[in-house]
Amino acid sequence: MGAREVGLPSTVLPVNTEDLPGRVTIWEVGARDGLQNEQSAVPVEVKLEFLDRLADSGLSVLEATSFVHPKWVPQLADAEDLLAGLTRRPDVIYPVLVPNERGLDRALAAGVDHIAIFGSATETFAQRNLNSSLDVQFAMFDPVVTRALEADMSVRGYVSMCFGDPWEGPVPVQQVVEVGRRMLEMGCWQLSLGDTIGVATPGHVEAVLGGFIEAGVDPSMLAVHFHDTYGQALANSLSALYCGVSTIDSSAGGLGGCPYAESATGNLATEDLVWMLDGMGIEHGVDLDKLVATSVWMAERLGRPSPSRVVQALAK
Amino acid sequence: MGAREVGLPSTVLPVNTEDLPGRVTIWEVGARDGLQNEQSAVPVEVKLEFLDRLADSGLSVLEATSFVHPKWVPQLADAEDLLAGLTRRPDVIYPVLVPNERGLDRALAAGVDHIAIFGSATETFAQRNLNSSLDVQFAMFDPVVTRALEADMSVRGYVSMCFGDPWEGPVPVQQVVEVGRRMLEMGCWQLSLGDTIGVATPGHVEAVLGGFIEAGVDPSMLAVHFHDTYGQALANSLSALYCGVSTIDSSAGGLGGCPYAESATGNLATEDLVWMLDGMGIEHGVDLDKLVATSVWMAERLGRPSPSRVVQALAK
Repeated sequence: MGAREVGLPSTVLPVNTEDLPGRVTIWEVGARDGLQNEQSAVPVEVKLEFLDRLADSGLSVLEATSFVHPKWVPQLADAEDLLAGLTRRPDVIYPVLVPNERGLDRALAAGVDHIAIFGSATETFAQRNLNSSLDVQFAMFDPVVTRALEADMSVRGYVSMCFGDPWEGPVPVQQVVEVGRRMLEMGCWQLSLGDTIGVATPGHVEAVLGGFIEAGVDPSMLAVHFHDTYGQALANSLSALYCGVSTIDSSAGGLGGCPYAESATGNLATEDLVWMLDGMGIEHGVDLDKLVATSVWMAERLGRPSPSRVVQALAK
Repeated sequence: MGAREVGLPSTVLPVNTEDLPGRVTIWEVGARDGLQNEQSAVPVEVKLEFLDRLADSGLSVLEATSFVHPKWVPQLADAEDLLAGLTRRPDVIYPVLVPNERGLDRALAAGVDHIAIFGSATETFAQRNLNSSLDVQFAMFDPVVTRALEADMSVRGYVSMCFGDPWEGPVPVQQVVEVGRRMLEMGCWQLSLGDTIGVATPGHVEAVLGGFIEAGVDPSMLAVHFHDTYGQALANSLSALYCGVSTIDSSAGGLGGCPYAESATGNLATEDLVWMLDGMGIEHGVDLDKLVATSVWMAERLGRPSPSRVVQALAK
């Protein structure tokens, strides 16, 4: 008999329950961060069904796509078609990544009301990914955020390479805090602190979040975004919960791995996060069975198994 | 460039560093708990090379095999041959599982000095696994432990099903504490609290460990043994560290999964644990590169990839 048939995971209150948030917002990035890493583009009808199924499973934030130039991310070249075909639900938000003013124009034309900008915590990644310095990065963001706020959009700020950078190595905490604060001062309502290459460990997570909190940033303005490259994503998320963070980015089925390796690991799998939150008595609003069924369905579309442990364990 | 080439994971001290042990003993169970779950038996020469490579990587505890009846675990039927062929190193201990007095006779004959007994926290699992009640289980252990201590052996006590039982569901904390205390009173020097079906979550771990600590058991007498069935093993280990536990069972490459599913998850992978400990500045004595190379080598012998994220990421 499987564990779920007997009602596990059980809710067993932790010893230090007063330190933990009672409810977590899961920021589902599978359709964007997951699918942008697939080797070949997924048809727009499949993406639309995916988003619809994710909403059915109870997720309240579905990052839908990105208005990055199709030359760089051909997997998301169908952003306009996707948003035109999307049946928006009143209780779900559908944020879209916007890299620059051209992207913002496209988002405005598509009727998007929640956007995210994508910044780097390091000079080298800014140079490699954005072909600009950190100062140029901020100069580029400024008109995007100003115009977005004027249009009553909400703007989330991704900070990438918060823990390690493949060229620079470990990233100083104060540098991450400085970049994050500039994005908040610019008008972002929340930062998503990203471990873009998956090297973070729980002590490092505490140090970075502690740096922001010491600088006066409330944990409600912070989210975390972990990749499971070295198996640390869930342990890191636990650390973030203990620091008071209550928004966690994850991807259904752990989508987002390198498409060239079978079942390679990508983002933190939403299902693994849900299992942990269930056991800790933390509310999240997600129906795990529906979500697993969705990830199994998507894995069939992609032709490779989900790397999520929970999906592997519960898939019928 | 890979993360390790630039020296990651970095040691970044956690905010609450005073709560954490400075050094962790990794109790490597791959050769026993890992290989006993393989569909077909691994040749004894391969096991001997495996143990030798694990010792080379710096692990100081290598659970070698089990003296369970070969009818039940044919994969470990070569226990005598293995121990006869083993070159014991002075800085490594090689514990062996002993289920009963017959097993103890075999262990004594083989010159074993560290044994472990394997008990159940639930009546149903005692019945199914040992074909006995909990009281009969203890009556059976009594002469084993008495004779082992008389022979100057050390005796570790495994407590299985500490979190969930597939027949009984969630297991009451006080029941686990009661079973564990009986094993300590009998003469076990350490308990390994096992999540045999992998359903535990961090809050539950804190509750069980808190139960023992409240009952007066020092954390140095406790170890944890997690399976990664639902992806929780490393997060659970982090919780155990925060409770003051400094011995963690794990399996090189995550060996121990169901052999019928490709790359299915078994024990916590030693490599994933080492990565976390490295990042947290906690000593463990293991050379990660050597360990990864060993798991890659073993995966080739078994004909299927390691489920360890770190092995997948670092394997050349």
